[in-house]
Amino acid sequence: MSTRPVAGPEIERLIQLLSKLPGLGPRSARRAALHLVQKKDQLLIPLAEAMGVAVDQVCVCSTCGTVDTSDPCTICTDPRRDASVIIVVEDVSDLWALERASALSAQYHVLNGTLSPLDGVGPDDLNISKLVERVSEGNVSEVILAVNATVEGQTTAHFITDQLARFDGVRVTRLAHGVPVGGELDYLDEGTLSQAMRARTNF
Amino acid sequence: MSTRPVAGPEIERLIQLLSKLPGLGPRSARRAALHLVQKKDQLLIPLAEAMGVAVDQVCVCSTCGTVDTSDPCTICTDPRRDASVIIVVEDVSDLWALERASALSAQYHVLNGTLSPLDGVGPDDLNISKLVERVSEGNVSEVILAVNATVEGQTTAHFITDQLARFDGVRVTRLAHGVPVGGELDYLDEGTLSQAMRARTNF
Repeated sequence: MSTRPVAGPEIERLIQLLSKLPGLGPRSARRAALHLVQKKDQLLIPLAEAMGVAVDQVCVCSTCGTVDTSDPCTICTDPRRDASVIIVVEDVSDLWALERASALSAQYHVLNGTLSPLDGVGPDDLNISKLVERVSEGNVSEVILAVNATVEGQTTAHFITDQLARFDGVRVTRLAHGVPVGGELDYLDEGTLSQAMRARTNF
Repeated sequence: MSTRPVAGPEIERLIQLLSKLPGLGPRSARRAALHLVQKKDQLLIPLAEAMGVAVDQVCVCSTCGTVDTSDPCTICTDPRRDASVIIVVEDVSDLWALERASALSAQYHVLNGTLSPLDGVGPDDLNISKLVERVSEGNVSEVILAVNATVEGQTTAHFITDQLARFDGVRVTRLAHGVPVGGELDYLDEGTLSQAMRARTNF
């Protein structure tokens, strides 16, 4: 009895595809699909159009590797940003997270992954040579390695540091390690705590 | 600084529309949009197509009032269902919930709301006259009022019962009230408990 369809296969397919979105499970995808078909004019039609536009226009920036609807992307062509600082991130989601934090008005470079020999990911699989090319053009004064504090992230950071060592005058930095803002010491791991203690600053 | 765009307006619009889906907030909409544009071939294109199909084909069944891609709908045209029993629900979401439970293989009738004089919702605003018409055709033996156990739901149930009183041989029933399966007595309200006690059955 549980396989009886309650609606046409077109709606079932919509539910099935929506359930692949992060944050939506099978149940919430069903609710979302129902919401869409019941709000056809206000939501379904505009969203279908916005997705059609995205299908046509989304591309990867040939300079920094982020996704956008123009190439070069919105960030690479923003004249208000400091073009002499490049923030290197693993993924576009990290770029968006740093932009949400409004940490620094600089340029970015998206690696699209980390070095991982076990998974067969080598330097040529990442967007590293383009980074070296950008730095070799001579206008960069600092490269900030905003990679994750994982083994793979740190391995990748070391590799990039080696690649950029020959450029004099280019400072390679990394994010500070320490206690997260709002974090409680009791819940932190020993590595973070000892790092935070070593890198203590004046109050 | 927080207003600097990280991507073109087309992607911002996609995020904004996705955040209107139930279950997705501004943050998860951003994650979903990124997931979509990064999985263009596997997800964005199929989902855009599925939505386009839905835009073209979704309609309201002129018999029962549910949403589907055909009229009469999948349920109304299903020959395996018992056409002599009509389950009356407030919304399509209730229909889908009952179908998930595989409770009964019957026909449905969606009211699209409840009587609510304070909100200006009268009998003519609901899909009630069509229900009376279906019953008057003479093939119906039972109408199950599967409305919510709220004041509005019960008011609507009484109104429909009055409308159907003139049809002899049509039994009007409602869902059982009682302890939810898996529910703990300690957490239940007095109304449910006393109802469950009055309607107790042999063990």
